[in-house]
Amino acid sequence: MTLVWLNGRIVSLTDAHISVTDRGFLLGDGLFETMPVYMGRVFDLDAHLERLASGLAVLKFAGAVDLVKLRAGIADYLAAEEMVTAVLRLTVTRGAGPRGLLPPEAPSPALLMTLSPMPPLATEPLSLHIAAATRRNEFSPLSRIKALPYLDNVLALQEARDHGADEAILLNVRGTIACATAANIFAIRDGRLETPPLSDGALPGTMRALVLALANRLGLAAVETSLRAGDLAGADEVFLTNSIRRVTPVKECNGKPVGGRGGRALERLHALIAARMGLP
Amino acid sequence: MTLVWLNGRIVSLTDAHISVTDRGFLLGDGLFETMPVYMGRVFDLDAHLERLASGLAVLKFAGAVDLVKLRAGIADYLAAEEMVTAVLRLTVTRGAGPRGLLPPEAPSPALLMTLSPMPPLATEPLSLHIAAATRRNEFSPLSRIKALPYLDNVLALQEARDHGADEAILLNVRGTIACATAANIFAIRDGRLETPPLSDGALPGTMRALVLALANRLGLAAVETSLRAGDLAGADEVFLTNSIRRVTPVKECNGKPVGGRGGRALERLHALIAARMGLP
Repeated sequence: MTLVWLNGRIVSLTDAHISVTDRGFLLGDGLFETMPVYMGRVFDLDAHLERLASGLAVLKFAGAVDLVKLRAGIADYLAAEEMVTAVLRLTVTRGAGPRGLLPPEAPSPALLMTLSPMPPLATEPLSLHIAAATRRNEFSPLSRIKALPYLDNVLALQEARDHGADEAILLNVRGTIACATAANIFAIRDGRLETPPLSDGALPGTMRALVLALANRLGLAAVETSLRAGDLAGADEVFLTNSIRRVTPVKECNGKPVGGRGGRALERLHALIAARMGLP
Repeated sequence: MTLVWLNGRIVSLTDAHISVTDRGFLLGDGLFETMPVYMGRVFDLDAHLERLASGLAVLKFAGAVDLVKLRAGIADYLAAEEMVTAVLRLTVTRGAGPRGLLPPEAPSPALLMTLSPMPPLATEPLSLHIAAATRRNEFSPLSRIKALPYLDNVLALQEARDHGADEAILLNVRGTIACATAANIFAIRDGRLETPPLSDGALPGTMRALVLALANRLGLAAVETSLRAGDLAGADEVFLTNSIRRVTPVKECNGKPVGGRGGRALERLHALIAARMGLP
């Protein structure tokens, strides 16, 4: 990352600074999107900007962010960086404010974009750990938007790594599965492609939506249904999805084997997603 | 606010910047304390630093923050600003990190202090609104430390103001009262001074602890017990506490009158707290 895009200007990383009065920094008052760039363009940009818009509506500063200008800014930034394949993170905060929780009446949001190298797709299935220390709060609208506060997810991932697992599963407060710390979770069972509904605290992942839309191409019925930890062991296949890593199979959860009986479904899903992305 | 203290240096506000790779900004990965300064010293500093230390332990970067140095930094900063009466905010983030949720193994925290004018104590009792849009997650350890993510509280306060109320009450996910958006809540009932236990999602406020310790001086039994919204109407007195505003009486909740029958208890409590602070 050499150049960053900050409030409409492309500047060097060392010249890019956030104000100490920024509410994103002080209170987590903001949103972000992490988006894959292929062939110099963001894949599924509309879905990411729609999710951003829904987050801005929840936080009530949609009127202060011009998504048309932002879209042009994304194109400018990618062109300036000549990035063909990369990860683009967009951060939008409510900007500076006076002391206290109450937002300013006319916020002046801070907008930041950074580019990072695209990580390789997973070559090995992952091990999961069900986080015990924290739960995802499906009673908060923040569970349904991509808000800056990711600290529960950080704690859950730390716990998973302490247990030798690759990723953590967050349960919701009712005790069913919500999602992983940076991915949604799917199970293939009995000819169904199952994933927790958003009302269970699942983040509305863009790759989640794409995979649900592709289920019928796999000969599977897409079903949003609550999943319990015990449901994973009996599944033909368990996998995680996110916009960057796409689809990653899971081999075990809390030390017990899961999945691995999905036959060609995941292979076929990979191919369908790559085709959507225009990739070989 | 003219000068800020940033990582051991006192700099002007315009020269104080946060890195765009700071995890506090990107993920809400950090903590803060808001502390009252009287006569050039932080009141109850030990309590604030203890809460900070407990937060650092939960986030697992206690080893990277030198609290002895930090204490000296607070003294330096207050001396440099010649502030007699003020609000001091201390922000501690895990610092910069690579892309992703996993913290760096050897974090280099960012430490920031800012000073703001001390707001006046409330002269009028407050009206409360019980937030419907979100709940405080008592299943997360973040409910028991003062972590940066305050976005649920921001949403709740916005909702309260939309309803013409001064402050919002956050229920926990079980539906009992946790706390206000920037204060703890107390009810005086039947000779008891009641407040929700920390296990109900109450923030461990420093003023909450002080008020509990002073209960017997008021002739009241301090009781940590779950409070339901309906319990407020029947209370002799309902009040909020935080370190800056100290004790603020409540006059109504969701449009219905509460409290106001506490006699001299609140007056006496004010005097006891002021005496602890060494104030007239």
